Amino acid sequence: MSERIVPRTFKGTRDFLPPEMMERERIGTILRGIFRRYGFAPLETPAIEYLDVLLGKYGDEADRLIFRLAYKDAATAALRYDLTVPLARVISQYPQIPRPFKRYQIQPVWRAETPQLRQGRFREFYQCDVDVIGSSSILADAEIVAVTEEALSALGFERFRIRINHRKILAGIVEAAGLGPEWDLPVCRAIDKLDKIGHEGVAEELVRAGVSEEARARLATILEMRGEARAVLAAVEPSLAATASGPAGVAEMRRLLGELDALGVDGGHIAFDLYLSRGLDYYTGPIFESVLPDYPHIGSLTGGGRYDRLIGLFTGDPVPATGTTIGLDRIMTALEQSGGLQKAGSPTVCLVTQFEEATLPAALALATRLRRAGVPTEVYYDPDRLKKQFAYADKRAIPFVAVLGPDEAAAGKVTLKTMETGEQQLLDQDQAVATLVGALRPGAGAPQT
Amino acid sequence: MSERIVPRTFKGTRDFLPPEMMERERIGTILRGIFRRYGFAPLETPAIEYLDVLLGKYGDEADRLIFRLAYKDAATAALRYDLTVPLARVISQYPQIPRPFKRYQIQPVWRAETPQLRQGRFREFYQCDVDVIGSSSILADAEIVAVTEEALSALGFERFRIRINHRKILAGIVEAAGLGPEWDLPVCRAIDKLDKIGHEGVAEELVRAGVSEEARARLATILEMRGEARAVLAAVEPSLAATASGPAGVAEMRRLLGELDALGVDGGHIAFDLYLSRGLDYYTGPIFESVLPDYPHIGSLTGGGRYDRLIGLFTGDPVPATGTTIGLDRIMTALEQSGGLQKAGSPTVCLVTQFEEATLPAALALATRLRRAGVPTEVYYDPDRLKKQFAYADKRAIPFVAVLGPDEAAAGKVTLKTMETGEQQLLDQDQAVATLVGALRPGAGAPQT
Repeated sequence: MSERIVPRTFKGTRDFLPPEMMERERIGTILRGIFRRYGFAPLETPAIEYLDVLLGKYGDEADRLIFRLAYKDAATAALRYDLTVPLARVISQYPQIPRPFKRYQIQPVWRAETPQLRQGRFREFYQCDVDVIGSSSILADAEIVAVTEEALSALGFERFRIRINHRKILAGIVEAAGLGPEWDLPVCRAIDKLDKIGHEGVAEELVRAGVSEEARARLATILEMRGEARAVLAAVEPSLAATASGPAGVAEMRRLLGELDALGVDGGHIAFDLYLSRGLDYYTGPIFESVLPDYPHIGSLTGGGRYDRLIGLFTGDPVPATGTTIGLDRIMTALEQSGGLQKAGSPTVCLVTQFEEATLPAALALATRLRRAGVPTEVYYDPDRLKKQFAYADKRAIPFVAVLGPDEAAAGKVTLKTMETGEQQLLDQDQAVATLVGALRPGAGAPQT
Repeated sequence: MSERIVPRTFKGTRDFLPPEMMERERIGTILRGIFRRYGFAPLETPAIEYLDVLLGKYGDEADRLIFRLAYKDAATAALRYDLTVPLARVISQYPQIPRPFKRYQIQPVWRAETPQLRQGRFREFYQCDVDVIGSSSILADAEIVAVTEEALSALGFERFRIRINHRKILAGIVEAAGLGPEWDLPVCRAIDKLDKIGHEGVAEELVRAGVSEEARARLATILEMRGEARAVLAAVEPSLAATASGPAGVAEMRRLLGELDALGVDGGHIAFDLYLSRGLDYYTGPIFESVLPDYPHIGSLTGGGRYDRLIGLFTGDPVPATGTTIGLDRIMTALEQSGGLQKAGSPTVCLVTQFEEATLPAALALATRLRRAGVPTEVYYDPDRLKKQFAYADKRAIPFVAVLGPDEAAAGKVTLKTMETGEQQLLDQDQAVATLVGALRPGAGAPQT
């Protein structure tokens, strides 16, 4: 074995120590519960994919960020870059999977970026994707928005907004401004930057792209329509009436808004935002993104839309698809900044002290009773002085300490100390178990079986 | 974007499609619940580690199986090979973590092996580790065995055996046979193969290692002691009385057995097995391994022990440690072979049909009520013929279908069909929700918040 190694994490990656991991597991449990209640099923794919499966899906710049393995040669295998391309591969590889296929997937992805830790840009980070594959129904898009809204609410966010737009409406707006379909992408890329560069910046971008003054004026007139989603839709509808894709976009958007209502989604969380276009050119229908108005610097917490062309790259036939990515790292950041994180150092609710050799069996038996009742319980490992054992509980923020001396053990009793108040009670062990079960945060220690 | 790609998984890796993933999530939830009730907290470390952190810990052969990244050069970074070395790195890197540190970690590891899929040897597979770092107390070892026993019981195994032995007892046996400490490893390696090569094979291995006939006879006399754990211990004790480490091993083993009793561990699941030594030379105290007598070909489901030297390679100072790996892949194989897997295609309990455009809002409202009551619910995405919608439910093994036609919708009712029996009932929607909530498998759809 070698000499002492300097312990350090690979640049751009992180260890998740217990306080953060406990929150990540709590969030994962909440999200999985919501996904499943909508009938989404879990999928996992390997970290390693053949390189040709990954290359050419994300653009040249992204291709350079794919982490390759030094396996045979670096042109053979690589680490997955996102969860969408592996999903497309799965759909194509297993034609027996019934469609529509509703899946969620929560796994890390890797990008060989220059890490910018302050901006939360890492080389290894979790993605959480929810998608419906194989349905053109707008109801599938509505469910993705409903899942997003329910997830953000369940995680404790109150003020958030899910921005929605539609690629066909954007195309209609471009056409209504007198521009051909070749202008879709440059115009979308420019207006999508509104949050970062403001209206003037967008205007400059459009000039730089070569959009004429007349077209810019027409674009501005339509894009400025703001207000309640249905009002915006009604206002924009006449301008798009004569365009190729505008009316279909308006009809689908109207349907989407109606279905969100019927699904009980809080309309206060939904915003129809004509500027939203999201950079990627693979979106083909509704697009959505959620943001926290109080924390604009965090960026979007979720983002997605309908992408009816990507899966076909693998299957050969077009397969409609819609979905969203939920950004777990940004959600952690937002919860941290809004005080919504519960940072406990350990799951333990009760520390049973070890008084002396003779009472250890009684201490272990009490610990087992507590564990079987669902109370996360530790037994102190050595018969140290009680002061030291209390200090241990204090350091870990363990809320209760059970002291079992010879008298208590003989009488089937226990002294239960509440660490926060310092209060000590001599209780029957039955009472102590009941007290501790009552003190559990809901779900904290209970098995989910 | 490129031409059509042949969809395939990297050799030696697997996709986990929903039926298997649902079981993996169920098993993960059970295990996490048990770990937490014993006060273990979750940890995650990055997939990518600097190569020097990994090299030299596992032996030369294993070093060749480390997957290296084509990053800068292949001597920089690699994929983690197990969860123990990253744990050792974490202990050393964050001296502020209070000890004893009780952690669990469930993450994939990678090995550049020639895949042998039939034998369940993969290049990417999950490990599940539970360890106590920083305590020499035998109670920590006892907890690891108790957690193992509780985990295997909770997963539905009835006939299993946790074999226990102690490195100091093994060393005592070697000394009692008249062999010096340099014989510890060759003797342990030989006797550890008993299950694979039988008594004759072990004898041949010992001959090959150069163990004298006299020493072999003495070894055989002691090793043959079998029976109830305490009886074996009592029988072996006199032979080891004069050895250097034997008496300490006997005392610790007696203590371990007593603590297992006090913790309520079923003694029928525990076997004191003098042949057990496990190949790795880093074990220093109790060692444990669990097997299914009815499925010997699956091998050990869990394996671990006390390893008081490994962490010191990182910290510089010795840090006592004990723990176990729980082999999730082998557990899946064993559950599959024993019929203990619940292979559902989707989490959905109820499919709400889409009758026609006009009743869709009522269908969506019912789906939302069901979801809020914890019932995993899908709404069929299109107003197809009902026959097709029923066929969809059938194919997915969705147990209930709710039909909401115009009459039902107007009357606040719903026709609920039980797919298994074909029975249909016209119910008030309240009744239908209550029926479906009652039909949930415990925990199937309920949020754990």
